Amino acid sequence: MVKILLNGCGGKMGTAITNLSKNYDNISIVAGVDKSPKDSSSYPVFKSISEVNVDCDVILDFSRPDSLDEILNYSNTNSLPIVLCTTGYTNEQIDKINEFSKNHTVFRSANMSIGVNIVNNILKSVSTILYENYDIELIEKHHNQKVDAPSGTALLLADTIKNTISEKIDYIYGREGVSKKKHNEIGIHAIRGGSIVGEHDLIFAGEGETIEIKHTAQSRDVFAAGSLKACAFIYKKAAGLYDMNDVLGM
Amino acid sequence: MVKILLNGCGGKMGTAITNLSKNYDNISIVAGVDKSPKDSSSYPVFKSISEVNVDCDVILDFSRPDSLDEILNYSNTNSLPIVLCTTGYTNEQIDKINEFSKNHTVFRSANMSIGVNIVNNILKSVSTILYENYDIELIEKHHNQKVDAPSGTALLLADTIKNTISEKIDYIYGREGVSKKKHNEIGIHAIRGGSIVGEHDLIFAGEGETIEIKHTAQSRDVFAAGSLKACAFIYKKAAGLYDMNDVLGM
Amino acid sequence: MVKILLNGCGGKMGTAITNLSKNYDNISIVAGVDKSPKDSSSYPVFKSISEVNVDCDVILDFSRPDSLDEILNYSNTNSLPIVLCTTGYTNEQIDKINEFSKNHTVFRSANMSIGVNIVNNILKSVSTILYENYDIELIEKHHNQKVDAPSGTALLLADTIKNTISEKIDYIYGREGVSKKKHNEIGIHAIRGGSIVGEHDLIFAGEGETIEIKHTAQSRDVFAAGSLKACAFIYKKAAGLYDMNDVLGM
Amino acid sequence: MVKILLNGCGGKMGTAITNLSKNYDNISIVAGVDKSPKDSSSYPVFKSISEVNVDCDVILDFSRPDSLDEILNYSNTNSLPIVLCTTGYTNEQIDKINEFSKNHTVFRSANMSIGVNIVNNILKSVSTILYENYDIELIEKHHNQKVDAPSGTALLLADTIKNTISEKIDYIYGREGVSKKKHNEIGIHAIRGGSIVGEHDLIFAGEGETIEIKHTAQSRDVFAAGSLKACAFIYKKAAGLYDMNDVLGM
Repeated sequence: MVKILLNGCGGKMGTAITNLSKNYDNISIVAGVDKSPKDSSSYPVFKSISEVNVDCDVILDFSRPDSLDEILNYSNTNSLPIVLCTTGYTNEQIDKINEFSKNHTVFRSANMSIGVNIVNNILKSVSTILYENYDIELIEKHHNQKVDAPSGTALLLADTIKNTISEKIDYIYGREGVSKKKHNEIGIHAIRGGSIVGEHDLIFAGEGETIEIKHTAQSRDVFAAGSLKACAFIYKKAAGLYDMNDVLGM
Repeated sequence: MVKILLNGCGGKMGTAITNLSKNYDNISIVAGVDKSPKDSSSYPVFKSISEVNVDCDVILDFSRPDSLDEILNYSNTNSLPIVLCTTGYTNEQIDKINEFSKNHTVFRSANMSIGVNIVNNILKSVSTILYENYDIELIEKHHNQKVDAPSGTALLLADTIKNTISEKIDYIYGREGVSKKKHNEIGIHAIRGGSIVGEHDLIFAGEGETIEIKHTAQSRDVFAAGSLKACAFIYKKAAGLYDMNDVLGM
Repeated sequence: MVKILLNGCGGKMGTAITNLSKNYDNISIVAGVDKSPKDSSSYPVFKSISEVNVDCDVILDFSRPDSLDEILNYSNTNSLPIVLCTTGYTNEQIDKINEFSKNHTVFRSANMSIGVNIVNNILKSVSTILYENYDIELIEKHHNQKVDAPSGTALLLADTIKNTISEKIDYIYGREGVSKKKHNEIGIHAIRGGSIVGEHDLIFAGEGETIEIKHTAQSRDVFAAGSLKACAFIYKKAAGLYDMNDVLGM
Repeated sequence: MVKILLNGCGGKMGTAITNLSKNYDNISIVAGVDKSPKDSSSYPVFKSISEVNVDCDVILDFSRPDSLDEILNYSNTNSLPIVLCTTGYTNEQIDKINEFSKNHTVFRSANMSIGVNIVNNILKSVSTILYENYDIELIEKHHNQKVDAPSGTALLLADTIKNTISEKIDYIYGREGVSKKKHNEIGIHAIRGGSIVGEHDLIFAGEGETIEIKHTAQSRDVFAAGSLKACAFIYKKAAGLYDMNDVLGM
């Protein structure tokens, strides 16, 4: 049983992780950190990570970039591996994390979804042959409150294709008027509506046939599941920097 | 058995109609018209409709706008109903067709596909309630040789929604940068690749649920099937202007 | 502002409704009923509906069939309209509800999703013409814990088609071996996996073209949204029995 | 320019290959074999391969198993590589082909579609990790005249998954009644309707997310394109047995 300290347990992701963790036999959240703790939690919640006095095996962090220093301190003092799921770090902070990982066990990944990482790995291995035989387009769908287009994950996947193919690839974000498709152009189409959590559909269209590789996230549970999987993976691992590909063994 | 005179029998659509017609018991192509007739045809082919000397019941036209006058002449002389599937008529020609239909039996439709017409009719009846509950987006997919975007059918379907809803609707043709979805905005996304014949996917995305209504054309047979259905329908009908909704009884 | 008394506020659906209601301006949950009330609720929770002493406008019920009598009593005493979302009533109980609705305002629907009801109405209006032109198949997808196959909603939709078409329709639930499709046979295919909330995809496949009508439920919010819409609708309506079609104005 | 002798040029596949070959610069069909040759062909057609007196580079065979011997003879006499796309060979014939390939250049593949082969290769590399994280289901769709279910390609793909995963996998072909999904069970669902050419959709459903890998064949051109690609590939290759993976370099 891996005992987890959940830093940022009070937010939407913290709640999703807490609920999902109850389905796992090999994992248990034994303490949380949140600035305004609620009484109703199933584990003790502290206002600051420095106050935590419960025995833990792994720190799981879904908080904010500015809490990085105190997490690293606590990890160092208590010899605890860290799973960092917070996004938005500065380059300086990322350098600090990389430096810290030379002597400590650290997990950090651009996308916590198992599925997006698997799709990304498939693209790495087959983009060249797909591009030889097919035109490429990408459709992503998200809820109507999302302000940026295309999504970060869409760009992550498109960049994987772009970096794999030797020819120069251009992105376009829509078509209107007279605009015949060029082979080295990937159309990235951002659909917005309702409460769609997130879909990414890669379309490879060729002579008389089409291949589609599609990822659908139905709920925040997908990121919660990925982070818990990372905790179970990193427990008792040697010092170093790990990401989702290590967890997946890809 | 309805005997058809196929005007424009040598082109891609003419060939598709000829092949498909062999599957029908109640229809037979008995003559064709093509500027450069081939010997291998299963029915006599004439260089001009005025030369046709075979007994027919219906004229099916998949030729060019400039052949309109001689078709109307032949129809008038021989008292034959006409199914006009040619596109690109001028407004003047359309007026002429409408005038002609006062005393003759004429079929003309913006889209010969049975399915697109059914989808269009569904949209007429439910767009108002869908718009009250869902955001609307449209994805269309076509082959990489198509020069115009979005497709005419995409605009036909979007216009049906626009004209049904009381609120003012705007179309947008892609999203990039910071661009939150507005409810009265329909995103129309043109995907281009390979040899895709034609797909139109209407997405209605709401609170926790999505409805999709999707039409896929797999081959030109869909237009061939619609035109043969129109021929069978129009045979022995009274003078007037008919379209696919009449054929479908919608 | 419609003030709602939520009977069965402690379950999964009750929690979903409570959370979603915070997004609505015209609706507020002012009291709840649950056998084991929690302190953390945002409104007073009572152990039994008979104990509720808060002023309400509508009773929204997501509890169990055996609480029907006390709901009807409370509705009668306080002149409150009822939205019944509980399933599994006996025929005797349904008779009682119908009788009660002669002098009271009652809402009850087989499926609380707005989308499923819209799809069902579309099927009522176009199944005949679709069946004349297309073969029909239905794919439904649900999570791996669902024990019954096919889903109740799949049967609801298939029965709508069956009852609309004059020809005798047979259902089959899979194909193996030599089994050519018959036109009057609807294949109903139950896909099971992961945590899929619910998809129903109606496929109409014809000569060179396909129409699909697909409903996807992403979360329980879809049923929560439907029930809140029903509450807003039924408020101040005359006595009678209403269902989702009345809410939708279809 | 690779000069092709097309054995079986008069059938549906032969016609598709002939038409598609006109789009290629590096390939030309210079002779055909068909039992009842038509005059209208763009190349000389012979009643039997032994009668062919035109200079060729590659034999492309889309005929019948019983013509195997005369093809091998002609290949041997004229030192021509063979692309065998005929299916339904007996085990004895397959042994003969394998033996022949020791001293001759032979191409033979279970599926001539480039896309199906790419999908199959993806499955080989990721089935293990997908199975660790997802439930697996397969939906295939074909036209209403197809007599066997599931399709050969569906079984090819499912077998690839089965053979890659260490746990014992069971196939089921539909669900009705009380039938909770088991993780080691792959549901294979055969949809039949209209004129659908062929779709294979692999569904990997997990905790809060789904991956789909889908192949759609729009027309026979997909097999024609694969066979022409094989001809260009095999030209001037050393003796040996090649398949589509060699062509794709996977």
